[in-house]
Amino acid sequence: MSTETKITPRAQDYNQWYLDVIAAAQLADYAPVKGCMVIRPDGYAIWENIQRVLDGMFKDTGHQNAYFPLLIPESFFKKEAQHVEGFAPECAVVTHGGGEKLEEPLYLRPTSETIIWSMFRSWISSHRDLPLLINQWANVVRWEMRTRLFLRTTEFLWQEGHTAHASDAEAEEECRRMLEVYRVFAEEHMAIPVIPGRKSEKEKFAGALRTYSIEAMMQDGRALQAGTSHHLGQNFAKAFDVTFQDEKGQRQLVWATSWGVSTRLIGALIMAHSDDKGLVLPPRLASRQVAIVPIPGKQADPERMTGEARRLADELGLGRAVVVDDRPNLSPGAKYHYWEQHGVPLRLELGPRDLEKQQVVLVRRDTGEKRSLPRGGLREAVRQELEAMQREMFEKARAFRESRTYSVDTEEQFRKTIEEPGGFLRAHYCGDTECEVRIQNETKATVRCIPLDAPAEKGRCPFCGKESGRRAIFAKAY
Amino acid sequence: MSTETKITPRAQDYNQWYLDVIAAAQLADYAPVKGCMVIRPDGYAIWENIQRVLDGMFKDTGHQNAYFPLLIPESFFKKEAQHVEGFAPECAVVTHGGGEKLEEPLYLRPTSETIIWSMFRSWISSHRDLPLLINQWANVVRWEMRTRLFLRTTEFLWQEGHTAHASDAEAEEECRRMLEVYRVFAEEHMAIPVIPGRKSEKEKFAGALRTYSIEAMMQDGRALQAGTSHHLGQNFAKAFDVTFQDEKGQRQLVWATSWGVSTRLIGALIMAHSDDKGLVLPPRLASRQVAIVPIPGKQADPERMTGEARRLADELGLGRAVVVDDRPNLSPGAKYHYWEQHGVPLRLELGPRDLEKQQVVLVRRDTGEKRSLPRGGLREAVRQELEAMQREMFEKARAFRESRTYSVDTEEQFRKTIEEPGGFLRAHYCGDTECEVRIQNETKATVRCIPLDAPAEKGRCPFCGKESGRRAIFAKAY
Repeated sequence: MSTETKITPRAQDYNQWYLDVIAAAQLADYAPVKGCMVIRPDGYAIWENIQRVLDGMFKDTGHQNAYFPLLIPESFFKKEAQHVEGFAPECAVVTHGGGEKLEEPLYLRPTSETIIWSMFRSWISSHRDLPLLINQWANVVRWEMRTRLFLRTTEFLWQEGHTAHASDAEAEEECRRMLEVYRVFAEEHMAIPVIPGRKSEKEKFAGALRTYSIEAMMQDGRALQAGTSHHLGQNFAKAFDVTFQDEKGQRQLVWATSWGVSTRLIGALIMAHSDDKGLVLPPRLASRQVAIVPIPGKQADPERMTGEARRLADELGLGRAVVVDDRPNLSPGAKYHYWEQHGVPLRLELGPRDLEKQQVVLVRRDTGEKRSLPRGGLREAVRQELEAMQREMFEKARAFRESRTYSVDTEEQFRKTIEEPGGFLRAHYCGDTECEVRIQNETKATVRCIPLDAPAEKGRCPFCGKESGRRAIFAKAY
Repeated sequence: MSTETKITPRAQDYNQWYLDVIAAAQLADYAPVKGCMVIRPDGYAIWENIQRVLDGMFKDTGHQNAYFPLLIPESFFKKEAQHVEGFAPECAVVTHGGGEKLEEPLYLRPTSETIIWSMFRSWISSHRDLPLLINQWANVVRWEMRTRLFLRTTEFLWQEGHTAHASDAEAEEECRRMLEVYRVFAEEHMAIPVIPGRKSEKEKFAGALRTYSIEAMMQDGRALQAGTSHHLGQNFAKAFDVTFQDEKGQRQLVWATSWGVSTRLIGALIMAHSDDKGLVLPPRLASRQVAIVPIPGKQADPERMTGEARRLADELGLGRAVVVDDRPNLSPGAKYHYWEQHGVPLRLELGPRDLEKQQVVLVRRDTGEKRSLPRGGLREAVRQELEAMQREMFEKARAFRESRTYSVDTEEQFRKTIEEPGGFLRAHYCGDTECEVRIQNETKATVRCIPLDAPAEKGRCPFCGKESGRRAIFAKAY
């Protein structure tokens, strides 16, 4: 594997920069099948950390994992009218199995509401069976014309929560609870500030009453939807005839939610934090938090230095999160470069003079800051540095977002600002889908969400002039 | 959800017993798609424990996880002649995507050698890139005519290790190392004794030089292949043109292994340990290790008893592995029954008299043994009981296997023993595929493996009379 890959600067070509960062950090490759990706070990390790943290949060909120089939009969999709309209055009279809043509075509799941609600029917009969709180970690397939690694691929990995409730209010509560789980995860683990809000009618999930999302800003000012939570009402219960007997003995239709995040989050991590030197990862999601580079001086014995580096690694007590770079064929400089491109949060350099002075040199990946630390108390110093980096990356991303968020009140302001400098526009929104389509066609901006905390404020849609009760966030989006 | 399900006794109908145990423990359901299964939360929790332990063992032996596409071009399969012959007939085929017919049909992966080696080609160029030690956790699809929950389903979950090496010897070493990882996992975590051995030519993986497996005995005396490890030689390197430059600057073909276990292991767990009362799980793989049932006496306050049960749960320090059954609508007896069917290793009963006496009643799921334990020191007593149960379940399974393993030397002995009582037959094996086919057709027994530790012993094949150097294990198999 090559240890050096050229990275195009962001200012020169943002899209190429994104692909170069992924290639240099060896996170993913395009697969030989159109639109599919291979997630390489260093990319998959990020996903494993995302899974580990989120899975714990799901279990802490009472959810259990299960697994439902990849293959869904075509007829299932047709049971919920909006759902089939939204998803059928992007489905991959299995027509043959075991050498024979199938009687009914099978869709590869683009999402699992239909197959799951067909099972919920036999699992739910009484109010005592509710709430039913299920999550699934799985691959899904959506046929995409224009793909981009992590952000939009034909197959991707995700989790999908599917829950069943006895009342509208309980479903709404669940839906908002999981949106909050996503917000906490994005901000505290991914170090990405997000805006939780409600999607417009046009942008809601096919088959939902309403959709909530968290929206993040990337370094080019574009928005990225980082997670969604849907209140599905009774639509799937109706389609699959799922009822329960309430405490009074009455049959009632069940209320539903679904919510999900995907490997797209890895794309968000890259675009939110990385720089022209390569990947920058928040410490909490980095599988390797510290890289130790031993520097054999002119007189020094390389094996002795490697041994010292290993001892240092043990002192840190971080297990597999510390790597000692003992590759004999690479110079220290080449190793620095390698770990910078791979986004390892902290680098420790250890040379003969450091040994003499009982110190190590610490370099922060995000700031490039370099300083010497005494060997004594290093374990605690490294722990604190990782925490500081996590916090400061979030603050930096938040400051950037603030600096690129604009309140606009006129069509002219809107059109100018979305073009240059671009970012999040806080503008009044009339709620009219036709107007929304026009704005998108003419400016490429979409309603990202109506923030949950948007204050009531009388105003008018800058485009159609209709009255509006609060501002939405508009942006160009991934 | 019903709390009581009738379980057919093993002696009456072993196959129905297996399905009843699964239904009563709510582990899985058949899906509406033929041959597919839904893994319910209690079943999936077992898989999560299997994953957690094995994943740690893979990482401890230097492997990294990655993810490769589900969809594989038909042409890839055709590059390795034996491989396509073995797998193409059982593939599911995607012919349409995004509303259009595809130019080339895509197979749903039945296994991933071809897609992975097509990527290895660009990842491997020098001896410094080797060994490359990759694992993938994924779903796979193999069109099956006769399915059985967990044991054989059209879609199943598994892990597949795929490694690349500079030499035949290193590949062989890897292959045997992972077989040993599987043996340790089966014996120490699943509490199932297994025989590691080599598969016959007839039974080896399509495209492999040789295949190793671990073979377990179920309670009906049948064998279940619980894991396989393949030395693939240079077959896939040839098919996908994967070479490396060795230390002398020469181009060499790369050597390969692959190895896997699947959700079939859950079937093995059920069949090896469960009884006529329902599921029995080894403590190390049980997500709920202890169920506490509070018994509200006639005068007692039910809420007080539940509070005491919760305090007891906290004392055990086992986190989510302890469940307090506070369902108000069920009698203690119904709860005992429920947890027995669900395979929870230990039950603790806590009634007003136990409170008075500062004790709890402990019941072991595997033996039914019931005794009182003093409340002081309970945490340690429970820990020891779980360990004892794990050990004794393994010993019991080993004793059972020994009691049903027979050395047979004549065709008559072979035929009689395989019919009644059935089990593992240690018999000389000529190595001839034609003879093997005949044995299978006439007796339904197959060569399970040639045990790695089978001593050299001169003898003759009981069927064809040809000379043999050691004994193989023959059995009817799942």
